[in-house]
Amino acid sequence: MSLLTVGTVAFDAIETPFGKTDKIVGGAATYIAWSASYFSKKVNIVSVIGDDFDMNELRELEKKNVDTSGIEILEGKKSFFWAGRYHLDMNSRDTLATELNVLLDFNPVIPDSYKESDILMVGNIDPNLQMKVIQQMTKRPKLIVLDTMNFWMTDGFIDALKKTISMVDVLTVNDAEARQLTNEYSLVKAAKKILTMGPKYLIIKKGEHGALLFHENHVFYAPALPLEDVFDPTGAGDTFAGGFCGYLDKSRDISFDNMKRAIIYGSAMASFCVEKFGTERIRSLTHAEIEDRVRDFIELVQFDIELED
Amino acid sequence: MSLLTVGTVAFDAIETPFGKTDKIVGGAATYIAWSASYFSKKVNIVSVIGDDFDMNELRELEKKNVDTSGIEILEGKKSFFWAGRYHLDMNSRDTLATELNVLLDFNPVIPDSYKESDILMVGNIDPNLQMKVIQQMTKRPKLIVLDTMNFWMTDGFIDALKKTISMVDVLTVNDAEARQLTNEYSLVKAAKKILTMGPKYLIIKKGEHGALLFHENHVFYAPALPLEDVFDPTGAGDTFAGGFCGYLDKSRDISFDNMKRAIIYGSAMASFCVEKFGTERIRSLTHAEIEDRVRDFIELVQFDIELED
Repeated sequence: MSLLTVGTVAFDAIETPFGKTDKIVGGAATYIAWSASYFSKKVNIVSVIGDDFDMNELRELEKKNVDTSGIEILEGKKSFFWAGRYHLDMNSRDTLATELNVLLDFNPVIPDSYKESDILMVGNIDPNLQMKVIQQMTKRPKLIVLDTMNFWMTDGFIDALKKTISMVDVLTVNDAEARQLTNEYSLVKAAKKILTMGPKYLIIKKGEHGALLFHENHVFYAPALPLEDVFDPTGAGDTFAGGFCGYLDKSRDISFDNMKRAIIYGSAMASFCVEKFGTERIRSLTHAEIEDRVRDFIELVQFDIELED
Repeated sequence: MSLLTVGTVAFDAIETPFGKTDKIVGGAATYIAWSASYFSKKVNIVSVIGDDFDMNELRELEKKNVDTSGIEILEGKKSFFWAGRYHLDMNSRDTLATELNVLLDFNPVIPDSYKESDILMVGNIDPNLQMKVIQQMTKRPKLIVLDTMNFWMTDGFIDALKKTISMVDVLTVNDAEARQLTNEYSLVKAAKKILTMGPKYLIIKKGEHGALLFHENHVFYAPALPLEDVFDPTGAGDTFAGGFCGYLDKSRDISFDNMKRAIIYGSAMASFCVEKFGTERIRSLTHAEIEDRVRDFIELVQFDIELED
């Protein structure tokens, strides 16, 4: 199979209670690609950067079989930049700077060689662009996964977002976003509403509290691994999505049962991501480390009850 | 085996976004006893009430093989009363009234016939009283489980609390309390510290986000069941503890593996508790309903991954 992701490749500057970085490489598509690269034979990226970007970063991705030829480089322009500061709970953060730069001109063009990708992971960008991406696929992907955020759930974007959501198979949002999108406080009720909006599957990400997968009247819950320190949560959700899509791509199976496994692998990848700043930890994993981490998840939730009837 | 619980039997008045009650029966020992009664052949209670209490409530417990003869009735005094209002998230609440009444005179005396109980579940009361309870047991129980709260983690009580904690096998606290007790934000670090304070097992209750069981360097995670509506969370933690202790008592096995099962049964009982006000839902359960609910937990977390090595 093959995996295409569309999203930001960018610079971040991050402050956490444990330290701060200068500009480091970030962006949804960066995390998705690094994470998926441990599973997929070939990951294709469509994105946009300025000529200030460190092109060695693209070479590093290419060593992991990530095709970066779909990343448009805008001469004389600067890459998207975000700066933020996390609070002690690591679930809340203040945005210190958002410089859209090249994102203002982003008009994603899917190269012909990517247009028949089996799995399409659309990272969080303007839903109008997300829709354009989906419409360019000449063969309907076996699975379209869409991430979005609260920013687009407002006047001016919500109609485009709802139309885009209606075109996908899997939607990923966090708990607050699920509530905002549906005006339902109960996540179960919110999930029921979202599953009437188009997607057959809904993943609600709850950060340190794990993730829920809803499908028809089924629900699966994957915890987050309890960690001694969460060093930097930036990119954890995208790393999760990359592991999820990469695992589905590798295993050529998009059944609900296999999605459960994919969520565990995605959670394992996210648990690595938060151990260091930015992409540092997820650039240097071994398959043995990933398998060991999945083993930790199995031990974390495994129990053995024989019911009477 | 046999189960003894010591704690409050009281009146509550509860307001939630879904409604409000007049004075209804509550108190930690009430919830613990109702919940444990579905598992234990015999549950013994030590508590104190005023003569304003509805004695029919004790008769209802006795029908479930709960021995209420250890509940002291103070003539001319009023029962402990708490009133509170929950916010929409159901995790935070305002206390509207706390009338200690009989609790001011509570000096728990363990009847001789209870002094060799196998499992002792000490509900949340003044740690000085909790200590007196433990000291009265002529035979060291196979398992002592202690619940407490942030109120006792302050000057004047913290020394007694720490001494009491050092005497027990299992401590149950919520996530905020674990942090307050240890001054560690990371629950993993907090758990490590608490496991050096005496208990061999620590349960951290995270409400709608489930519960963690720590033991040596092992950790087990049980989610809460995602519910359409959480109607009233009052007593959910005590109902969890009652199911946990009751299951251990019934199965005569206090190994770590069996504690995992006990936590699932406790979580199942708690998931019923929150469906209605007060003890209403947990007074009328069938074993088939409990088994079905445990089946829901198995489906919620079960996945099947074959690791490569």
